[in-house]
Amino acid sequence: MTADKTPVARLTPQATGTYLRNAWYVAGWSDDLAETPQQRTFLEEPVALFRDGEGRANAVSGRCPHRFAPLGHGSMADGTLVCPYHGLRFDRTGACVHNPHPGGQLPDVQLQVYPLIERHALLWIWMGEAAKADADLIPDFSWLSDPEWEAVRGATVAEGHYELYSDNILDLSHANFVHPALVANAFTEGERKFWQEGENVFAEYVRPDDFLSVGISAVMGTEGRRQDFYGRVKWHAPAVLYFDFRAGDPGMPYDDCTLLPSLHAFTPETPDTTHYFWATARDYRLGDGAFTAMMRGALEYAFEQEDMPLIRDSHRLMRGQDFWALRPVILGGDGAGVRARRMLQRLIDREQQQDPE
Amino acid sequence: MTADKTPVARLTPQATGTYLRNAWYVAGWSDDLAETPQQRTFLEEPVALFRDGEGRANAVSGRCPHRFAPLGHGSMADGTLVCPYHGLRFDRTGACVHNPHPGGQLPDVQLQVYPLIERHALLWIWMGEAAKADADLIPDFSWLSDPEWEAVRGATVAEGHYELYSDNILDLSHANFVHPALVANAFTEGERKFWQEGENVFAEYVRPDDFLSVGISAVMGTEGRRQDFYGRVKWHAPAVLYFDFRAGDPGMPYDDCTLLPSLHAFTPETPDTTHYFWATARDYRLGDGAFTAMMRGALEYAFEQEDMPLIRDSHRLMRGQDFWALRPVILGGDGAGVRARRMLQRLIDREQQQDPE
Amino acid sequence: MTADKTPVARLTPQATGTYLRNAWYVAGWSDDLAETPQQRTFLEEPVALFRDGEGRANAVSGRCPHRFAPLGHGSMADGTLVCPYHGLRFDRTGACVHNPHPGGQLPDVQLQVYPLIERHALLWIWMGEAAKADADLIPDFSWLSDPEWEAVRGATVAEGHYELYSDNILDLSHANFVHPALVANAFTEGERKFWQEGENVFAEYVRPDDFLSVGISAVMGTEGRRQDFYGRVKWHAPAVLYFDFRAGDPGMPYDDCTLLPSLHAFTPETPDTTHYFWATARDYRLGDGAFTAMMRGALEYAFEQEDMPLIRDSHRLMRGQDFWALRPVILGGDGAGVRARRMLQRLIDREQQQDPE
Repeated sequence: MTADKTPVARLTPQATGTYLRNAWYVAGWSDDLAETPQQRTFLEEPVALFRDGEGRANAVSGRCPHRFAPLGHGSMADGTLVCPYHGLRFDRTGACVHNPHPGGQLPDVQLQVYPLIERHALLWIWMGEAAKADADLIPDFSWLSDPEWEAVRGATVAEGHYELYSDNILDLSHANFVHPALVANAFTEGERKFWQEGENVFAEYVRPDDFLSVGISAVMGTEGRRQDFYGRVKWHAPAVLYFDFRAGDPGMPYDDCTLLPSLHAFTPETPDTTHYFWATARDYRLGDGAFTAMMRGALEYAFEQEDMPLIRDSHRLMRGQDFWALRPVILGGDGAGVRARRMLQRLIDREQQQDPE
Repeated sequence: MTADKTPVARLTPQATGTYLRNAWYVAGWSDDLAETPQQRTFLEEPVALFRDGEGRANAVSGRCPHRFAPLGHGSMADGTLVCPYHGLRFDRTGACVHNPHPGGQLPDVQLQVYPLIERHALLWIWMGEAAKADADLIPDFSWLSDPEWEAVRGATVAEGHYELYSDNILDLSHANFVHPALVANAFTEGERKFWQEGENVFAEYVRPDDFLSVGISAVMGTEGRRQDFYGRVKWHAPAVLYFDFRAGDPGMPYDDCTLLPSLHAFTPETPDTTHYFWATARDYRLGDGAFTAMMRGALEYAFEQEDMPLIRDSHRLMRGQDFWALRPVILGGDGAGVRARRMLQRLIDREQQQDPE
Repeated sequence: MTADKTPVARLTPQATGTYLRNAWYVAGWSDDLAETPQQRTFLEEPVALFRDGEGRANAVSGRCPHRFAPLGHGSMADGTLVCPYHGLRFDRTGACVHNPHPGGQLPDVQLQVYPLIERHALLWIWMGEAAKADADLIPDFSWLSDPEWEAVRGATVAEGHYELYSDNILDLSHANFVHPALVANAFTEGERKFWQEGENVFAEYVRPDDFLSVGISAVMGTEGRRQDFYGRVKWHAPAVLYFDFRAGDPGMPYDDCTLLPSLHAFTPETPDTTHYFWATARDYRLGDGAFTAMMRGALEYAFEQEDMPLIRDSHRLMRGQDFWALRPVILGGDGAGVRARRMLQRLIDREQQQDPE
């Protein structure tokens, strides 16, 4: 009867999107999952997240097989997940381990269990074949749990297809137009390079000896000073991105520049809505609460008030049609986004050939 | 231009649900229908409710055959229902009896008339063949209009299929989990029995010598005292339920126990939304307004803040699929709900064989 | 990041309505379009409105061919429309004239350009073949820009099919029922006449020596005095209407009566939503701000609080079905509405035979 009981998403009888299933998706921020379970929708499937008696985070099907109640709106008892409707209890293996009703016979049911790993302050969920869930495939975001770094972060549900959100990060030239207070023209006018390595896609922006925006300068403490600037985005299929942002006085060696590492992770909720998890960290002014609040406010505004409405509207203007069928104009800046879209399509195709349903 | 002019429900071109038509459904609380007509949707059909010059309550099609205006958003004149758009007037037989425009020719139209009976403080509507509308089939809820009983009550529109709402009342074991402040474990741990008699289905819960919840004890004035408890639910197709709740000091004869009679009546608005009418009465502390308000508040909270969100979410998690197609786990406590679902299906099948469209 | 950035309408993959395309639709009030572009949806197509460097109003496709961003949520630079997402700039011919990214190659794209004419304080858009856009076909509403007339006006998006909105103006007999404070029974009880001239449809209402409503009397300054009243509506396909309302002391020559000219223009946004532009002017008490505010308030209430909810509900009660398939009762007062519907259907049929797609 408390906390996060937002209505569950409306879903079609069958999923209408096609997803990469054997992949790690971000399911949430690790410490947002405490004693209260959570109900979420990932890839059009209801999922319940909860911590068992040992404090381990788990993910199981978020629909009770008895009367379809959202298990993630339930509670915990003795380390088991209690259905909010009639009190059946499920353990981390998805087995029903307690029936509180007369007789107490345990129904022969098995919730789907999703591999879930807690790493780098995040919960990573595997929406495909459990046997293939290899924790080594989780991208390295260790700075998120490193005490030498202090991160501001967010989690929200955004309207629009998740690939539009990863496109957005892979083409940072948008920043100059969408985030005028936060970003200068370095992303537009700098040198840029897009490439692929294995299954990753990269975008790189370099701009020496230019002014950063007022906002970024304030965060970096370089107001009014020219800086060398380096930005690099690394995309991991399906839609987890690392943004490495560095700046330093002109001529400063790359490794001595100030780094602001960022995460942008997108997990499809439905074909029209996306879980958006973001974070940006710094390794200076640690513990400075006012500074942290300013930094969080600036980034939250940029993502939620500037990016999200624009992507929502672009999504609506696509009218439910396929991206390529709309024959988009391709600009130079799309070099990374296009590579990522093609790579993701290849990975999905490969998976479907291996595991035809 | 006043009162209850909520937007009419969005409807599909044809009804998508299959309903028992030759049955009495609750259309509203009798004294909520005063001089102002009401626009409602029952079984995906627009209906206008109004009182004619003699004060009789009537139900006719809620769509003007001229320009499709909601007749129930109209007004009354000389005991006739006036269309809010161009002023055509209809009498209780559905005939157009006045055309206020030049010439005044009466269009040859006939609104569908739904048999409507006012009984037990409720309006009962018959959505099927008028010739079969037998008032004797209306279940007995005479305590609702008996001055020796004082009832608190409500009427709301709830998201979710109406059968999920009757299931909810037929399996009171949910109360221990959904209504923690209101109900103790008697419904879960007591003896229970489910059976069918004719076309009615019953659920019975008995629990001697146990503590009731703080909430119920406060209503009954038995705080801190053990009680014998008897609960019996009687289901009338399609979805009208009587809940007979009694408690008394241990060993007290059944007939001497304190009775709290309840109505839970569900009338489908659409396949996804349900009119929920409820009432609970007492025969003590009559006229005690503060006590009445406390009692109403507790019940309203239970039904609207605890039951409804959970059933809404369960409905959404069914994703528009058929209940049985989802292969629900059946627990012992489903004995009444399953009987009622099967009985309702038999009644609908029988009706459709008799009246194939 | 300012002003009017309402979410774009949700659209189906293909348009579901059939429209008259070679026709002038009202796109907005001329002076509501200033330096900030506007994003609109007309006939299920996204449109961007903007003023170029010479101050001319223009209309182009409201979807960027690069990443589908709403161009009308962009900004202006050097008289060109700047995409809000990546800064591509388009001129009034729909050509991309600036690419701010490295290399700066101009993509070979061409936005659809819609003929747009600024006249009578309104923006008129042609949604069909540009070669056929003849400015002489724009109806005469010169009083809207005549300094001898002072108009109150509005622009809103209303739920309901646009033909229901023009029907509403073509049958003013509704006023007596829908606008009780504003209109007396003259429209219902007066003499009326409906006819067609060329492609226009007319409705006329005459009522000598009767009391007007309190509201209209207050606007005309004739409280408590009988008046002769003349009302004439002229319909221009597809849904632009002029309402000529005159009143004077009994026996006063027609030309000496006080005139209140009105515009009601309806432009379909989608099959279920309509842009509603309205204005009423007077040639007395010019510059009297309090009087103007009273007049605007009365009319806005009538259109937005009385007409719109009723038409919205009538639209919903049609359940997405065809008007004629519902076999509406036809009353005498429908003489103009029916003629307009038939004329519009003929014009659409003729257009589709000429320009089969």
